[in-house]
Amino acid sequence: MRLTCLNRIFRKTVRGMRDLLPKEAEKLRFIEGTARKLARLYGYEEVITPVIEHYELLAAKIGEENRKRMYVFDDLGGRKVALRPEFTASIARLVSTKMVSFPKPIRLFSVGSLYRYDEPQLGRYREFWQANYELIGSNKPEADAEILALSCDVLETLGLKNYVIKINHIGILRNILGREKVSEEKQNTIMQLLDKKEWDKALRLTEETGVSNKCLETLKRLFEIKGDKRETVIKMLSEAVEEYPEASDSLNNLNEIVSLVENSGLNVKFHFEAGFARGLEYYTGMIFEAYVPELNIAVGGGGRYDKLIELFGGESTPAVGVALGLDRIMLAMDKQAVSPPEPPESRVLVVPVDEDMIAEAFKISLALRKSGIRAELEAMRRGLSRALSDANRRGIIHVVIVGRKELSEGKVVLRNMLEKTQEEVKIEDLPNKIGS
Amino acid sequence: MRLTCLNRIFRKTVRGMRDLLPKEAEKLRFIEGTARKLARLYGYEEVITPVIEHYELLAAKIGEENRKRMYVFDDLGGRKVALRPEFTASIARLVSTKMVSFPKPIRLFSVGSLYRYDEPQLGRYREFWQANYELIGSNKPEADAEILALSCDVLETLGLKNYVIKINHIGILRNILGREKVSEEKQNTIMQLLDKKEWDKALRLTEETGVSNKCLETLKRLFEIKGDKRETVIKMLSEAVEEYPEASDSLNNLNEIVSLVENSGLNVKFHFEAGFARGLEYYTGMIFEAYVPELNIAVGGGGRYDKLIELFGGESTPAVGVALGLDRIMLAMDKQAVSPPEPPESRVLVVPVDEDMIAEAFKISLALRKSGIRAELEAMRRGLSRALSDANRRGIIHVVIVGRKELSEGKVVLRNMLEKTQEEVKIEDLPNKIGS
Repeated sequence: MRLTCLNRIFRKTVRGMRDLLPKEAEKLRFIEGTARKLARLYGYEEVITPVIEHYELLAAKIGEENRKRMYVFDDLGGRKVALRPEFTASIARLVSTKMVSFPKPIRLFSVGSLYRYDEPQLGRYREFWQANYELIGSNKPEADAEILALSCDVLETLGLKNYVIKINHIGILRNILGREKVSEEKQNTIMQLLDKKEWDKALRLTEETGVSNKCLETLKRLFEIKGDKRETVIKMLSEAVEEYPEASDSLNNLNEIVSLVENSGLNVKFHFEAGFARGLEYYTGMIFEAYVPELNIAVGGGGRYDKLIELFGGESTPAVGVALGLDRIMLAMDKQAVSPPEPPESRVLVVPVDEDMIAEAFKISLALRKSGIRAELEAMRRGLSRALSDANRRGIIHVVIVGRKELSEGKVVLRNMLEKTQEEVKIEDLPNKIGS
Repeated sequence: MRLTCLNRIFRKTVRGMRDLLPKEAEKLRFIEGTARKLARLYGYEEVITPVIEHYELLAAKIGEENRKRMYVFDDLGGRKVALRPEFTASIARLVSTKMVSFPKPIRLFSVGSLYRYDEPQLGRYREFWQANYELIGSNKPEADAEILALSCDVLETLGLKNYVIKINHIGILRNILGREKVSEEKQNTIMQLLDKKEWDKALRLTEETGVSNKCLETLKRLFEIKGDKRETVIKMLSEAVEEYPEASDSLNNLNEIVSLVENSGLNVKFHFEAGFARGLEYYTGMIFEAYVPELNIAVGGGGRYDKLIELFGGESTPAVGVALGLDRIMLAMDKQAVSPPEPPESRVLVVPVDEDMIAEAFKISLALRKSGIRAELEAMRRGLSRALSDANRRGIIHVVIVGRKELSEGKVVLRNMLEKTQEEVKIEDLPNKIGS
């Protein structure tokens, strides 16, 4: 084998990609496991869709900003493919093709890695992880409320405190613009500006489309309405949009949704912002993002999208969903000093005192694992004292020492590294002794 | 929103990619969970490395056949990157950089999706899943034996029967060829031919390198030696290679490894094949593949690679590992009619009898989930009788009916769809009633 080393630059992760070492990987898997547990409790069944999809599918309604940041390439068969930047397009594809005959509502859960060529920064990576929930087939406010409650429940179950749901209803703005005959394309551009908090630019662009002064005044007023008290904010909004009946319907819908969640027993706080939009183009109703005070990026976000499944060739099917950012939740847990629980297994190191004892130590290790004990075999043929230092360094409390003399009586030596005691124990009694 | 439908061809998965619907996804996650549980019991800590790595890292020792099938592209920053076709290169990178100071041995577990542009067929997809275990830092036979035992333990714990481990030691062939001064490059080509079971071509190529007749005769003899009984096969091999002392050492090493596993209490059967090689170039010692009788493709494979970490710029570090194919294990379980256990949660449908009861039904659903019950809210505003048919169609046994009259006494109606009975139950007693 040639011993020419690989060039240093290729020994690093690609820019924007990360390695998760054991402690971080454990956190990610704990969050994923909690997300999956709650999916089951809420009746969301898991589906797994591929990372690689046709570019056209993923690009269809992702929004201009996100489209520019997709990983796109031709595969060896010349197909234009991309790495998924979000789950919803794949789920809509699935529902409009292979799941057409499934009874509605369909509740689906997905979790995995996603890809966007963003500028790397804290909480923003080019490979990132999401848990995604979609409730498909219902246009009722209780469906929106369920997605909100589920999102809050995941955060609360993980132990996150003081989270806030920033919320709006995209129908309020879209219905006003629609009334004024602003094209869908222009509406999308305006929403993209709102997503970037460029409200002035959004107003200027709206003005250029030739809308009425009343419309401009209404938008200006809306963009300034924000607050935490539902009754107060809804009242202000309702006065602002009173000349736009479809916008008023959207507002009532938002009020119903939030009331359901507020009265459900969760510790949720809402923050209303009438000038808030999201980058994805497919939203048609309630939209939201979840925040913790310690981070200025959202730990999750979602909303209602009633036209996407139809666009992908399915029947007209209302739907609402949420994506929770596992990496960002991990950061939020770090900031709030919340940790996953300790693993349940007892941990032992099994040390053969000499080479002749390896086969027995190997066998005893297997038997211990069958009893649910995490057993690591001393696999370096270190002497006993070096093996004991190794146990200390790794924080292993119990060491099983396999020697000829004790073995002839069916016993081993069990050493407690904390108490610095040891005793002879029958092999079959080991699980009880270690477990206690 | 434009209602132009997405072109039909983009509504399919890309060739070679798959969707896993709920039943299949559940199986995959069950296998993944079992692999993770065994990782913990054997002391393997999980790490998560990115799907996208530098092309040069992944291509370095993957072998020619696999190299041609990689997904390679330039990212938006002009970097030549690829989707990982296996885990070991990434793990070797990690160990030789960020984990240099970790005490040896290092035991690492990884699980996730991998990418190869293979011709799709049963059990061979372009996106596939593996669970990967690596034991790094020990060159002792008990390390190889541990990786074998762990592989067998995963298969047995999943309930797979009659699996066979096909095994060989690549050092036998490489040491013979090395003695005869066959270049490493030529050796790799010969191994690739063996991997494709083209033994005659391999012999012809070896002959062309100008090796001695004794060498050719030895190889011919070796390629015909196979069998299940360790003592018998080892004896034949040992006679065949007696003039090549380094090859004899390799053989003794193989014998020690297999003895340890055979005596450990697992239900493993071995099958020795001296002409067996694997496509990956980095192996230096014992190599193996796991099979079940119902499938002619391996459900897992691995071996020892003592030079790879050094190649990636680390210190000289021996290592041994295995990758188990989750998709193929899933197929094997289907063929052997082995299923994951039923999920532990009781399942109920919560139905508000009219719109005024929605908020209460919403709240009761949340409370049930807090008690560990899988509660689905009727979110379509169907009438009671249609809601009950829906419960039937989904196989839900318990239905909680939330009506005004019962609620005024703090009660709901609990209906058992199997027994066709119903009773009024206090809300706080629901978990006990449903759980029983």
